[in-house]
Amino acid sequence: MTFQAFDAYVDAHAPAILDRLAAFCRISSVSAENGPAMGQAAEFVTGLCREIGVHTELSPQPGGPPIIVGKAGAGPRCLMIYNHYDVQPPDPLDEWRSPPFDPQIRDGKMFARGVADNKGDLIARLTAIQAYQETIGPLPVRLLYVIEGEEEVGSMHLFKFSRRHEGLLRTADGCLWEYGYKNPDGNPVVNLGVKGILSVELWVRTADSDAHSSNGGIYPNAAWRLIEALNTLRSPDGRLLVDGFMDHVKPPSESVVDLVDRLPFNEAKILQAQGLKHGFLAGLTGSALLRRLYLEPSCTINGIVSGYTGEGAKTVIPAEAMAKLDFRLVPDLTPDLALKLVSEHLARRGYHDVEVIDAEDGLLPWRTDPNAAISRAIQSALAEVNSHAPVVNPSPAGSGPMYELCGLHGIPVAATGAAWYNSRIHAPNENIRVADFLDNIKVVGRLFQRFAEMPNEEVAP
Amino acid sequence: MTFQAFDAYVDAHAPAILDRLAAFCRISSVSAENGPAMGQAAEFVTGLCREIGVHTELSPQPGGPPIIVGKAGAGPRCLMIYNHYDVQPPDPLDEWRSPPFDPQIRDGKMFARGVADNKGDLIARLTAIQAYQETIGPLPVRLLYVIEGEEEVGSMHLFKFSRRHEGLLRTADGCLWEYGYKNPDGNPVVNLGVKGILSVELWVRTADSDAHSSNGGIYPNAAWRLIEALNTLRSPDGRLLVDGFMDHVKPPSESVVDLVDRLPFNEAKILQAQGLKHGFLAGLTGSALLRRLYLEPSCTINGIVSGYTGEGAKTVIPAEAMAKLDFRLVPDLTPDLALKLVSEHLARRGYHDVEVIDAEDGLLPWRTDPNAAISRAIQSALAEVNSHAPVVNPSPAGSGPMYELCGLHGIPVAATGAAWYNSRIHAPNENIRVADFLDNIKVVGRLFQRFAEMPNEEVAP
Repeated sequence: MTFQAFDAYVDAHAPAILDRLAAFCRISSVSAENGPAMGQAAEFVTGLCREIGVHTELSPQPGGPPIIVGKAGAGPRCLMIYNHYDVQPPDPLDEWRSPPFDPQIRDGKMFARGVADNKGDLIARLTAIQAYQETIGPLPVRLLYVIEGEEEVGSMHLFKFSRRHEGLLRTADGCLWEYGYKNPDGNPVVNLGVKGILSVELWVRTADSDAHSSNGGIYPNAAWRLIEALNTLRSPDGRLLVDGFMDHVKPPSESVVDLVDRLPFNEAKILQAQGLKHGFLAGLTGSALLRRLYLEPSCTINGIVSGYTGEGAKTVIPAEAMAKLDFRLVPDLTPDLALKLVSEHLARRGYHDVEVIDAEDGLLPWRTDPNAAISRAIQSALAEVNSHAPVVNPSPAGSGPMYELCGLHGIPVAATGAAWYNSRIHAPNENIRVADFLDNIKVVGRLFQRFAEMPNEEVAP
Repeated sequence: MTFQAFDAYVDAHAPAILDRLAAFCRISSVSAENGPAMGQAAEFVTGLCREIGVHTELSPQPGGPPIIVGKAGAGPRCLMIYNHYDVQPPDPLDEWRSPPFDPQIRDGKMFARGVADNKGDLIARLTAIQAYQETIGPLPVRLLYVIEGEEEVGSMHLFKFSRRHEGLLRTADGCLWEYGYKNPDGNPVVNLGVKGILSVELWVRTADSDAHSSNGGIYPNAAWRLIEALNTLRSPDGRLLVDGFMDHVKPPSESVVDLVDRLPFNEAKILQAQGLKHGFLAGLTGSALLRRLYLEPSCTINGIVSGYTGEGAKTVIPAEAMAKLDFRLVPDLTPDLALKLVSEHLARRGYHDVEVIDAEDGLLPWRTDPNAAISRAIQSALAEVNSHAPVVNPSPAGSGPMYELCGLHGIPVAATGAAWYNSRIHAPNENIRVADFLDNIKVVGRLFQRFAEMPNEEVAP
């Protein structure tokens, strides 16, 4: 089967498709605000689904926007598609060249909050169904859409939704995940996993109130106490020192390590872009750098505060100190296990006065076998459309609810999308290149076909 | 010579003397604000001096309130008296039972900002001159007053003043310092020294901007970097680890150690008052606690801040981190030397990215020989007025410009004053007991006499 007519349809309808994307991006569906725009965005998606022939049902969520479940097509195999209709807050507003919710096309790029993450993907995928049906015929695969409205605020209802709808979700043979991008060399990146995450706060209270620092030699100091506790968690070169933590890191398969070692990573360019004048942490470079980034857990201080931090000096002993940390988790670490290990580690060292608080729901890590059907189908579809070969990342460093929606049910997951390396997601002037967006529609059309044909593979996470 | 008439004068004039103190406390001479009240307070003091027969001159200071130099009396010996006419800011206002600048007497105590620190002492000492002259006769000692208006903001002009007026100041045989109090057992405390202080800020910048914490395993993190650097400065039990720091601690004399070991210190009461549920730092107690507090340097984190510290989690790697620290110094450590040692210590460990900034002018430590004339004269005067024996602290933990005004010129210094242990200086509801205040006038009158009679002693700081 050729996709000549499919591709011609996409090209011919490009202006209307871009209008559709712009209309969606005009809805300021900032989930952190949870205002009326959330309902408008859900309505926009269900309206578009209706137009295209995707049957939708809303799954209401207590205190949050609904999860949209969509079904279309027929066939022996089922492709799940995960997207979200919410976006990040647009701040800082004054750094936007055009208003975040007034989409504009400049230099072949559309600028808008959410256009890359991930309204562009959502529109491309729905449009691919329409193009397929109008140029080729009935979909060759059953599609199962799960579109949530809380991805940017932690997907707090998705895990429960997933457990409640186990029967439905287990009908999926693979899942096309949200987001994907082209790297600086022009290669489309296929992501096959996520790291898990545990976010905690560490609190220390040493006294009822701050004291005069002339007593600094004899009074406990909450800031010192917290800092001493923190220093037992990580070595200066970035390795986890939490008792037992590394014992739960499952050695990755040879094929995963091999793919990671071959990932393109322009160290000099990244150092320059980030303004890292002293290089990477502990002088990491080459495959040691890549393995640390993609295959190992990390412990990051996101913030710390204690005592007086204003202008000038204040001779005070702080009574309270707090640090926010995140732990990025690889299989088989889980947020619950990580929390237990950190708490026990500190207690074992006498830090009974350091309170470890689980700051929000964590996420579990998940990896898909690079040889899974969804992975091969996406690579095949990408190779047909792009001149540059796809690059497979078997174990990306980011986090998302991939285990919660798919891993729990053993569903292999892969991601490709319309973004590029400078899409500036979560930042001002978020954008996608129009050509990438249109190409992505063509990729997804082929993916329907390739995935329908592809024999199943066992998943070996 | 008896002080019967002197004491009767004080008792008979108590209402007028308290009115005088209240009038002074009504002037909101907050040096941190440096408003018109500073000039009013200086005028009040010079006016009162004129009334009493103390000849004053104003030494103008660039950008700050003037230093008042006062002279009175005659005789072979010269007693310097140091006071300040500025006060701390009154915040938090809503915790005051009566307005901070509307002095009120309740339960035998006068409440007002500055009444204990140190307007009560200033009025008591000037009133003692008046009482002496009216009941006994001409002063038996030359008095040299130095009254500044910037004690609560770091006495930034005093050191230069002291160097410029070396000839004048070196005529003093001893100095009565500001502030002194009665301890919980009722004993008046005589303080014979101060610790020095160095206040610094440590800054770390690891990148141009914050980065996403999925890179936590490979990007430098300013918060981690600062914490690792801080941990090299002090051991968890509070001892200084800065290279060479302890080598500059001059072993205190046997008599100083002996006095320190005998200082009353109700550990249980202090732990309870401060809400220190886990005891003192590193389980310190007894003479180890007292020696640490009074005879050793300390390193205190006054504040630390980095990254995101608001509500919820933010997956960010901080690009910048800052900590404020103070080092309390004992002889022969100086602020300049301490700054040099800390900077070299960090550089030696590779922390070239940690910037050490001298936050404000430091103060040098100073100790007066417990056997110095001023020390013995004060003890003698106190013993005559109080039923409880004076307690001598040869090396208090607080800091003040004692070296800068007196130590530089080898002038022995001792302090006694009208406060009590619950005077709440620098806090809401600052107060003195009226009886203590009136007693203090009687003590100072006797001090003029005792100091005039007392043979000089060599000072061995």
